[in-house]
Amino acid sequence: MIETSDENTRLTPVTVLGLGPMGRALASAFLEARHPVTVWNRTPGRAGDLLDRGAATAGSVQDAVAAGQVIIACLIDYDAVRATLEPAQARWGNRCLVNLTSGEPAQARQMSRWASSRGIDYLDGAILTPTPAMGTPSAAVLFSGGRDAYEAVRETMAAMGGTAVHLGDDPGQASAYEVALLDIFATSVNGVAHAFALASAEGIEPERFAAFATGIGGLLPEVIKRFAQQIQSGRYPGDRSTIASAASGITHIINTASGHGIDVGMLSAARGVIDRAVAEGYGPEGLARLTTVLHTAGRP
Amino acid sequence: MIETSDENTRLTPVTVLGLGPMGRALASAFLEARHPVTVWNRTPGRAGDLLDRGAATAGSVQDAVAAGQVIIACLIDYDAVRATLEPAQARWGNRCLVNLTSGEPAQARQMSRWASSRGIDYLDGAILTPTPAMGTPSAAVLFSGGRDAYEAVRETMAAMGGTAVHLGDDPGQASAYEVALLDIFATSVNGVAHAFALASAEGIEPERFAAFATGIGGLLPEVIKRFAQQIQSGRYPGDRSTIASAASGITHIINTASGHGIDVGMLSAARGVIDRAVAEGYGPEGLARLTTVLHTAGRP
Repeated sequence: MIETSDENTRLTPVTVLGLGPMGRALASAFLEARHPVTVWNRTPGRAGDLLDRGAATAGSVQDAVAAGQVIIACLIDYDAVRATLEPAQARWGNRCLVNLTSGEPAQARQMSRWASSRGIDYLDGAILTPTPAMGTPSAAVLFSGGRDAYEAVRETMAAMGGTAVHLGDDPGQASAYEVALLDIFATSVNGVAHAFALASAEGIEPERFAAFATGIGGLLPEVIKRFAQQIQSGRYPGDRSTIASAASGITHIINTASGHGIDVGMLSAARGVIDRAVAEGYGPEGLARLTTVLHTAGRP
Repeated sequence: MIETSDENTRLTPVTVLGLGPMGRALASAFLEARHPVTVWNRTPGRAGDLLDRGAATAGSVQDAVAAGQVIIACLIDYDAVRATLEPAQARWGNRCLVNLTSGEPAQARQMSRWASSRGIDYLDGAILTPTPAMGTPSAAVLFSGGRDAYEAVRETMAAMGGTAVHLGDDPGQASAYEVALLDIFATSVNGVAHAFALASAEGIEPERFAAFATGIGGLLPEVIKRFAQQIQSGRYPGDRSTIASAASGITHIINTASGHGIDVGMLSAARGVIDRAVAEGYGPEGLARLTTVLHTAGRP
């Protein structure tokens, strides 16, 4: 006869602070993985079907912290994390704070110091995938901060699904990746919006344009790999396309967009950097060379 | 006994004006497909191994035009096309000018009028793929201009390989697609360069960053498809990500990049458009809504 005690089967209790779309997706993933889950949100009434599915709500942050062993913060910004946790400093014991709030590397490092000065184990994290991927094999989450803290929560974090990577001791690294990856995404998506506006002004149907645009968009991973190799080697050959030809291409886009009364702010800024690269003699080199020209510190 | 005459097996003679990287790739593709090829370049000595492979050089533009039935121009810009062809107006007969020079829709329409006023059949074209793809199944070329002119050169153009699409009578359409597609590519690639600069300032190795960045870059085709559907329907739901959250994300990137002395011109311009969208009440909507906000005409 096999005896199973509650002690052995009970998984680590998790508290989720913040019930925006990602906070709800996180709570849902931990429930799905059978963790006891307590949720808290500044504005009550956001728990939705999480309560029917077994989540408990806490009436105060103090109670929310007390109910969990791993405390996950997914709030609007780092200031909100600090403001939320200030009143709950007494109850931490050996609990770990995992901060998945979006922010900046400097803020993550500051938050880590704040936690450390209060004896709270701290991990910073960055979720790289959209809300619907949370808890699925395609989820990707980065963590940074002390190795011991990471090892202590690693099994619990597996409920988020997909890939989890610990980037090392510097608590700012997860945010650094997040911000740099968002840089690619935000810039590209703004470019996509601009291109659709331009296409539409030229009488091109969105669906017809998309049929070609997806092919262009699909080139990006290859460009990224090539950039990495060139930056690592410090050589930027212009055999595929040059900064000089990008200058002329961007001018064509600016002229056409301006003619239709479409904002050209991003393109003008891009051309400014490209013009600087040409002035510095990099016209015949590849676009990966722009990574060095973008550093404005110490330039005239 | 089967009789084959030279008349039947001789393919359409093609002339390529301009021997930059793409002009050379074009001449090479037509040679490969066994067309008689004549090349011309303003600066002589650029034909390289094309001569060994059977291409003829013309000493003048007049001779170059006379030698071909289809005359392909692939020059630095539209002004260069006109300047090159002005002295060769007498020799056209029923030859067709296929202009694959990069430019703007308005320039293509103007060039078409220039050709028409001289009795020259004209097609404008845009090559969407990089030089190494020319003549291979992955090549993609768009044409616009008269249907008859397109039908007359269609078989010859097959030597370029891959996909050829005739977009219709408006000679500016090929350029319109080219400029709008380049908009996506140029903006994204500048964003990629910026992200590598930022990652590097945060101590992230290029190759390690690329491992994550390729995943983000690979999301673009899906974003493009979603944008097309939303623009076509005129509805921009914010269920995946909102303009408001993009505003906060871009602020994190700007703060981090500024802290490292990295240029933030493109991001500031993007934030300007996003701020305008938020001010107009679109904060809770998806980013495809930016396509309408980008039209600055008639705005204060």
